[in-house]
Amino acid sequence: MGHSAIQPDARRSKTGVELITYSIAMNNNLHQLRCIGCGAVISGAEAKPDFRCVQCGELFEVVYPGWGQRKGLDRPNPGALKWLWRERRCSSEEIDHSGVWRFRELLPILDSFGDVVTLREGNTPLYKLRRAAKALGIDQLYAKHQGMNPTGSFKDTGMTAALSVAKERGFKCVACASTGNTSAAMAAYAARAGLNSLVLIPDGKIAWGKLSQAMDYGSLTCQLKVDFDGCLKLLTEIVKEAPIYLLNSVNPYRLEGQKTPAFEIAEAFDWNVPDHLIVPGGNLGNSSALGKGFRELRDLGLVARLPKISVIQAEGANPLVRSFLDHQATALDPVEAHTRATAIRIGNPASWRKAVRVIQETGGWCLDVTEAEIAIAKAELGREGLGCEPASAVTLAGLKKLRAEGKVASSETVVLLLTGHTLKDADYTIGFHRGTLLEKDETVGYEKEIASLQRNAISVDATVAAVLSALKERVG
Amino acid sequence: MGHSAIQPDARRSKTGVELITYSIAMNNNLHQLRCIGCGAVISGAEAKPDFRCVQCGELFEVVYPGWGQRKGLDRPNPGALKWLWRERRCSSEEIDHSGVWRFRELLPILDSFGDVVTLREGNTPLYKLRRAAKALGIDQLYAKHQGMNPTGSFKDTGMTAALSVAKERGFKCVACASTGNTSAAMAAYAARAGLNSLVLIPDGKIAWGKLSQAMDYGSLTCQLKVDFDGCLKLLTEIVKEAPIYLLNSVNPYRLEGQKTPAFEIAEAFDWNVPDHLIVPGGNLGNSSALGKGFRELRDLGLVARLPKISVIQAEGANPLVRSFLDHQATALDPVEAHTRATAIRIGNPASWRKAVRVIQETGGWCLDVTEAEIAIAKAELGREGLGCEPASAVTLAGLKKLRAEGKVASSETVVLLLTGHTLKDADYTIGFHRGTLLEKDETVGYEKEIASLQRNAISVDATVAAVLSALKERVG
Repeated sequence: MGHSAIQPDARRSKTGVELITYSIAMNNNLHQLRCIGCGAVISGAEAKPDFRCVQCGELFEVVYPGWGQRKGLDRPNPGALKWLWRERRCSSEEIDHSGVWRFRELLPILDSFGDVVTLREGNTPLYKLRRAAKALGIDQLYAKHQGMNPTGSFKDTGMTAALSVAKERGFKCVACASTGNTSAAMAAYAARAGLNSLVLIPDGKIAWGKLSQAMDYGSLTCQLKVDFDGCLKLLTEIVKEAPIYLLNSVNPYRLEGQKTPAFEIAEAFDWNVPDHLIVPGGNLGNSSALGKGFRELRDLGLVARLPKISVIQAEGANPLVRSFLDHQATALDPVEAHTRATAIRIGNPASWRKAVRVIQETGGWCLDVTEAEIAIAKAELGREGLGCEPASAVTLAGLKKLRAEGKVASSETVVLLLTGHTLKDADYTIGFHRGTLLEKDETVGYEKEIASLQRNAISVDATVAAVLSALKERVG
Repeated sequence: MGHSAIQPDARRSKTGVELITYSIAMNNNLHQLRCIGCGAVISGAEAKPDFRCVQCGELFEVVYPGWGQRKGLDRPNPGALKWLWRERRCSSEEIDHSGVWRFRELLPILDSFGDVVTLREGNTPLYKLRRAAKALGIDQLYAKHQGMNPTGSFKDTGMTAALSVAKERGFKCVACASTGNTSAAMAAYAARAGLNSLVLIPDGKIAWGKLSQAMDYGSLTCQLKVDFDGCLKLLTEIVKEAPIYLLNSVNPYRLEGQKTPAFEIAEAFDWNVPDHLIVPGGNLGNSSALGKGFRELRDLGLVARLPKISVIQAEGANPLVRSFLDHQATALDPVEAHTRATAIRIGNPASWRKAVRVIQETGGWCLDVTEAEIAIAKAELGREGLGCEPASAVTLAGLKKLRAEGKVASSETVVLLLTGHTLKDADYTIGFHRGTLLEKDETVGYEKEIASLQRNAISVDATVAAVLSALKERVG
């Protein structure tokens, strides 16, 4: 039987019943690493513990050379893949329940898929946004909600990939510097794999709520008397001296997992990609990964074109926006980041070069939005029944701006990528509705809009008449 | 074509491509309501706004008389259903992506399934618990994680059902008295349906974090100068005077949605049910619903037997345990409830009679666990990478007790039902790991176990040696 042929594969399920699953005869591990700076290509095993190129110091990206050979044995067959990925949704196998590993033919990064570390990430909902579509005069508006992943953020899709690599390579301990979603995801997957995990955080003001998950999943958290960059620098030294696997975003395998929502989106539209995908911009790994995912689909013939991919930053944490304005995106000056959308409060994004490439290649835009615009957009998404963390709401705020500037036509199909669950930042929500979130000068021009969205609890007499009158007054 | 025949059904998907979906020719609405007290049977339309029996004041349950007729036209065909439900996992239709409506032949409660209100609830993960299984000497231990629903709790499965009924019957406003997961779920589904929603809460100490979701989804929250029972009583009066749909747990349609995890569990085990299902016991709607789900599967010939269903309460909120001890479960004395597991802090559970029936019919147990046992079990689940809210952890704590008492054999297949996401109560997690959660007298005998599980952040010098030494000391 030749390569790329689909073959039935009889296995025993956990309940002992014989099942027919399907696989495509391909190697599980076809990847190499290519430096995005100097183009040097190395094998996965040759990567240094800090994942930096020894020649130029830049980051690596995962590449699959076999895919480039038109008649090559390792080039997947698009029709077979579409059928296979769909069928796997009906499978009883744990690996097929993952929205990342369901697409494993496009992530051949492991010697064996036999023991991937999974929490059933991915396969997240694509919600239709009817209210926002109407308000903006757009026919087709959707939200792909990555906050519906197991630990509540998009980071899970990347962690299942990178943790599986760590486990396969025999590491007993993994680590990251993070005070937020990354540490939560790492801790959960490490626990699932039975590995120890280490989180480094800076001294000083820490939002402990965000770290509760890392504790819950059993990470050791070390607080250091240095800033965040100092934590990252020390961790880079640590992984060079001890067998600890680095899981910050320099790790190129995380992006391999994070590219899979592109596959899910393409599949949901029957392999006709939407016109425009809008993504929050923090460390820029996500936009890079999604761009890579769509590019691979196109190069393999699964889709005909790329969607425009636009990146939205918060006004107070907009180094990429400035890079486009000041340097035509050829250089990036780090900024001191200030925004209440903590998940994108990043002044020196690691993956900025990859993101620039994605925006330029797809014809997308890069812009920023204010704190008030973020808060309003979050409340509007809430009104559609979709909670999200503040960073996710920049996508809707950005779309409004793009639409006002005539950059999005009413006939376009637009997908907003929501990155985190509303429960990730309950304090932000409460602050908004109580009116304590924003300063007065931030809300100028938005006072009425904000007031109409606020839903602080009100004290009412315990009578039928009083409650009904409050209801009539507030919601009509 | 006769009833129960599967027929292809050509429809247009959202992208305009013609799709073949499958449906079984059955009526969408086959239900009646039967009083669990006096047995009176009425149609759905005849129910009073407070969902109480006018004759005896008891609750109703949804019944499907057509299923009882062996050769009846409305009795579903088990083989066809299993095939159909599996195929729907590959469907592109929104309704088929719901783990509740995927099983809609067993929830014929609507005149039309055309506009169900869904957030893609259900289809939650069934995780294998390897560590806990080993520690307890049980071969097959799983956790069904209902906290992976869109708003972070099992309530979503019930809300999609009851909200769809509300919408179909033309209500413009829905309401509940709740300070927690119920209000979050109601608010989200109401927003999705474009309906207004009203939450009544008592004056005084409120955990605002829990209400952040209701605000986010746009509910109006009214705080009244009465206790929780007072809120519920007033709401009952309100719904009699105004066209507002009541969504507290007296609403029997919520249980129809909450029974669907039973279908998912049975399907995951290839229609051989596990030996034992362990459920947290608060208001007792969940255990009632799951029992109903398994009973219907058995009566329709989809499974051969019922699993034992055991209910675990917190020691300080154990009215059902006392009912078994003091009254052979024929009467229930309300208690003043005290437990940090807020989701089951309920002294007068609405669905206790239904739950008693389930426990007795299936041969399960009812027991309680202490605050320290809950906290330890939660941390142990965390160590497997499964965060949950404290109430969920009573299941593992209860299993340990049942196992110690010889009531669970090592060969049994056991499923723990986890009800809420860890992000629902970050403060509890932080308190446990910092050592501020439990009082000293609560931890007597558990000090070592607790210390070994605590993972409070530690201050460490910013050197490689200091961090590595901390790691070695703490995690080995």
